[in-house]
Amino acid sequence: MEEQRHRIVIIGGGFGGLAAAIGLKKANADITLIDRKNYHLFQPLLYQVATGSLSAGDIASPLRAVLYKQKNTRVLLAEVVDFDTDKKRVILEDGVVPYDTLIVSAGSSHHYFGHDEWETIAPGLKTVEDATDIRKRIFYAFETAERETDPERIQALLTFIIIGGGPTGVELAGAVAEIARDTLKNEFRRIDPSKARIFLVEGLDRILNTYDDSLSQKARESLEKLGVTVITGSMVTDINDCEITLGKGDRKETILCETVLWAAGVKSSPLGNKLAKRLLLETDKAGRIRVNEYLKIENYDDIFVIGDMAIALDKNGEPLPGIAAVARQQGAYLAKLISARIKNKQYRPFRYRNYGIMATIGRSAAVADFHWIKLSGWLGWVSWLFIHLMYIVEFENRVLVLVQWAWNYFTRARSNRLILGRRIAKNIKSGLPEKQPHHSESVRDEIFR
Amino acid sequence: MEEQRHRIVIIGGGFGGLAAAIGLKKANADITLIDRKNYHLFQPLLYQVATGSLSAGDIASPLRAVLYKQKNTRVLLAEVVDFDTDKKRVILEDGVVPYDTLIVSAGSSHHYFGHDEWETIAPGLKTVEDATDIRKRIFYAFETAERETDPERIQALLTFIIIGGGPTGVELAGAVAEIARDTLKNEFRRIDPSKARIFLVEGLDRILNTYDDSLSQKARESLEKLGVTVITGSMVTDINDCEITLGKGDRKETILCETVLWAAGVKSSPLGNKLAKRLLLETDKAGRIRVNEYLKIENYDDIFVIGDMAIALDKNGEPLPGIAAVARQQGAYLAKLISARIKNKQYRPFRYRNYGIMATIGRSAAVADFHWIKLSGWLGWVSWLFIHLMYIVEFENRVLVLVQWAWNYFTRARSNRLILGRRIAKNIKSGLPEKQPHHSESVRDEIFR
Repeated sequence: MEEQRHRIVIIGGGFGGLAAAIGLKKANADITLIDRKNYHLFQPLLYQVATGSLSAGDIASPLRAVLYKQKNTRVLLAEVVDFDTDKKRVILEDGVVPYDTLIVSAGSSHHYFGHDEWETIAPGLKTVEDATDIRKRIFYAFETAERETDPERIQALLTFIIIGGGPTGVELAGAVAEIARDTLKNEFRRIDPSKARIFLVEGLDRILNTYDDSLSQKARESLEKLGVTVITGSMVTDINDCEITLGKGDRKETILCETVLWAAGVKSSPLGNKLAKRLLLETDKAGRIRVNEYLKIENYDDIFVIGDMAIALDKNGEPLPGIAAVARQQGAYLAKLISARIKNKQYRPFRYRNYGIMATIGRSAAVADFHWIKLSGWLGWVSWLFIHLMYIVEFENRVLVLVQWAWNYFTRARSNRLILGRRIAKNIKSGLPEKQPHHSESVRDEIFR
Repeated sequence: MEEQRHRIVIIGGGFGGLAAAIGLKKANADITLIDRKNYHLFQPLLYQVATGSLSAGDIASPLRAVLYKQKNTRVLLAEVVDFDTDKKRVILEDGVVPYDTLIVSAGSSHHYFGHDEWETIAPGLKTVEDATDIRKRIFYAFETAERETDPERIQALLTFIIIGGGPTGVELAGAVAEIARDTLKNEFRRIDPSKARIFLVEGLDRILNTYDDSLSQKARESLEKLGVTVITGSMVTDINDCEITLGKGDRKETILCETVLWAAGVKSSPLGNKLAKRLLLETDKAGRIRVNEYLKIENYDDIFVIGDMAIALDKNGEPLPGIAAVARQQGAYLAKLISARIKNKQYRPFRYRNYGIMATIGRSAAVADFHWIKLSGWLGWVSWLFIHLMYIVEFENRVLVLVQWAWNYFTRARSNRLILGRRIAKNIKSGLPEKQPHHSESVRDEIFR
């Protein structure tokens, strides 16, 4: 009988998990990559799917297609629901998978800081389904405004509020502004899309607060040039279907609006709490689990946590940020560490190499901090473009995304703005005086003449 | 006060409606194009979205983007529910739109010939949502098979039945065969996707029965070469969740299967029946309305019906087929006829110019009948490619589709195979012995070791 090879189970085919799987391609081990989706998603470009510049297919690669040559690796489309760490098994919705070494890299979801009821009103952007939903809300708001007669409601429909001044919030705000000012120009007959109001709301006193002060300022200027109103030092205190309340202390402000997008925070996948419970560990408020310098849970020899689910400290004792570069380096590192361990060898602790951070603002501006140089404006945008293209997993996608971008750049078109699925019932109804069908009909008759 | 211009309302932004709207760009009239989607869909390529070769965005163009320069035309995203032909108004779900001239071009949906209960089991392919659903079923069947242990169920999961041997059925069957034989080769560890069985079922005695006999035969040979089992002269008599019954008379056959796709027939949009009821007209069994040689409903001066909703006769008294070319020529014709009528001029009756018909079979074969020449195999495929690219509305899409196709042609890749939305509950559950959790778990433990 053949000897049982070392079994490595990786949960999550995001940047961390996929990098680990790819790094283990020569390992003398049986690797199982479990994901509930059948594709790896290049999340940094997801906002472009949400705003109609790219198709979801452009930034997704089937996990099987990425890994098919790797004979020691299999891909399992399955939902992990819990852990049995005593028996060393991952519990699926419909089965179990035993492991010798476990890498947990299931990523994060939106964090509403105790206001989970906001989720349906102010969706966040993490999945393809989120992007489709946000795309529908943005473009449907303009469509509904075109058919509306009440000026106050038209203004509400043309008001877009993005909460959270991190890179995702900045990118969304820039893209929505360009949709209103450029893409939809001349496409409507009654409304003027360029009159849309776009607010970017940040609780701290500047946007992109992990960036250098000067770059925060540049980003703010770029956004304002696109017509975005940047509100800093203001928290959201209430959101409902048709208005949002902002402010701090006594200074409260209410804005009538139809579309609110959430980019204010993320928390660990619920699997973080599940795992912590099994191991009697504490998590932080975002549900993340502390790992040591080997990205391993202290006192457990076989469980590693990386990416958005982990609190890993840098050399200054600060937690590493939840970004793709960190997860990817962690995954690649674990592949080496675990390969060494299988051969009973030692391997060095994890060190994050920070090559820089960047965020893009609309069609041709970005801020980038590479430490040795800070870029903004068009130069920042070109470096952003180059780096993002380099990292898109598959060659095909890289070419297609480049063609799409080139086209978008020169034409300002957004052809991927299909409103898919069922229409948003809220919008259909709220424009109608529901109890006066006859009056309503005659009013409409007037309207659509 | 300005004189009221002639108001033309077009229902449906498909091939017919869009051609009419574009043709009316210089008309001295106010044109309203109503569609419940915000995009025009190039339906002949929809099967490529369903089978993972293209993104929906590649074959869709926002109606507003197509028509934005046309100042006499507005686009309304709305659902038409009925007609008030006395007051000359179209009734929307949430309003009314008055017309002087009405063009009804709302297309068709699947026709289950009295078996509407089959619709959820055997979806048809008409919308982007249908394509996403079919894509999910195809690729999810392979994923589920990879995790299954019961050999009989594995075979059912790897059995795909396409009902209807018209162009759509032929195209779907060819694409599914290529997915199994080429795309997924080497991607699974337990199942062999190339062992999948693909059946194409046609009730008549040959597939593509509107084509020349010799081309039907060529198409059949091409399909069989790809590994499709073509069953002709056989009707579906029953479909349920896990098996399908075929046959004629006493000869009945039951095939265990997981995925059934419907390409057997279409019927007019329900608006056809609504309109017929208002005008006290008869429809045929498919809900279509008879129009005269001007595509007008006899005895009504202002209502035209085109495309899949209309029965228009050719010069031999045969009804024109429900294909894109017919709808497009009818729309363009109506634009001219109505423009002439506005100027109180006469215009000739409609004549359909049949330039030919074609259907593609997999990666590099097609049959095409241009009357003066019949093509099949690779030459047919090249002509198919060329003609379809020519007709994709927007330049951008044409380039992108070409790049994707070129890539697919050389690599046999299908990168657009994202399984989106909720998983199919049926599949998740049916593989599990539901009442024996302990046994099930230990079995699974074995399985996934």
